[in-house]
Amino acid sequence: MLTVYGDIRSGNCLKVKWLLDRLGRDYRWVETDVMSGVTRSADFLARNPAGQVPAVVFGDGRVLAQSNAIIGYFGEGTDFIPADAYDRARMYEWLFWEQYSHEPYIAVVRFQRLLGGKEADEIEPRLMERGHAALARMEAALNGADWLVGGGPTLADLALVAYTRMAHEGDFDLSAYPAVRAWIARVETAFGIR
Amino acid sequence: MLTVYGDIRSGNCLKVKWLLDRLGRDYRWVETDVMSGVTRSADFLARNPAGQVPAVVFGDGRVLAQSNAIIGYFGEGTDFIPADAYDRARMYEWLFWEQYSHEPYIAVVRFQRLLGGKEADEIEPRLMERGHAALARMEAALNGADWLVGGGPTLADLALVAYTRMAHEGDFDLSAYPAVRAWIARVETAFGIR
Repeated sequence: MLTVYGDIRSGNCLKVKWLLDRLGRDYRWVETDVMSGVTRSADFLARNPAGQVPAVVFGDGRVLAQSNAIIGYFGEGTDFIPADAYDRARMYEWLFWEQYSHEPYIAVVRFQRLLGGKEADEIEPRLMERGHAALARMEAALNGADWLVGGGPTLADLALVAYTRMAHEGDFDLSAYPAVRAWIARVETAFGIR
Repeated sequence: MLTVYGDIRSGNCLKVKWLLDRLGRDYRWVETDVMSGVTRSADFLARNPAGQVPAVVFGDGRVLAQSNAIIGYFGEGTDFIPADAYDRARMYEWLFWEQYSHEPYIAVVRFQRLLGGKEADEIEPRLMERGHAALARMEAALNGADWLVGGGPTLADLALVAYTRMAHEGDFDLSAYPAVRAWIARVETAFGIR
């Protein structure tokens, strides 16, 4: 039986949940509060030395971490990973960009506001600027395109939608990004995200 | 003809160069100074909207960015990407971890020291702490293992060695990480890195 360790408030963890649900995979979800310190416990670190969620543990004890590596694993052989080599590489380009140029701003600001107890005026302006730069890049990419890569939904859409659809919780106003907003609705439908 | 836009001082760019050289691929290297502002020029952004190097441009004009997506593309079909699905996912786990938990500390401190003109006492202590945490995790993974994933060199080793072998330029003393040091030498030999 597959076990998923995740915090249901985390977009990174939800990516895994949404994909497994969409694919009809059977798994056990172990709710893992990232604020409780449990991911830094000796027990957790023995299984996942990176001390992060999401992490999945297969029936035989093998462990896999990093949200985008996990969805890459379960996405293999599905239409959510393009068959064309260049499109597949472009999908990974978006996945790496998400972790380097989107999540550290959009997700981090939301985290600081929702869980870190910070008020809007306590957020570092640089985080807001870079978050908006990420949203502007997505707006440009989605202006005239339904999906980030190719002609259908891929893991790039799934990974990017996770924190983009929650961006307002970090005070990112999406009204300036109409293509992004239309895309969010499309991706939610494609992956059955409610 | 393949064109690679890269800054020869950047570990992210060198990953691409090292792999293409190792695979005997023909390409044109366009040296792109990240400090010059050229990656923010309208001309460059029209080709690569992320405004980053490395970026590769194929003969037909298609563009691919993000170092780890690029090496993933050129690594396909070689022994540097494991055939086993779980090992392949573990390789990607390391690639995502590199960009999120290693590069933002080890590479950023080196950048600030070498190119940003900062003295050692001007570096944020948090960056040094997290860099050492990344090195400690690698030391634990390589204690008793020759390679990060499976029984031979993979793109995980290539990606991680890029900034790890330059870590001393950011004042990270590797003498406390003997397994990492031995691994660096192994990876340099495997990929022909001088």
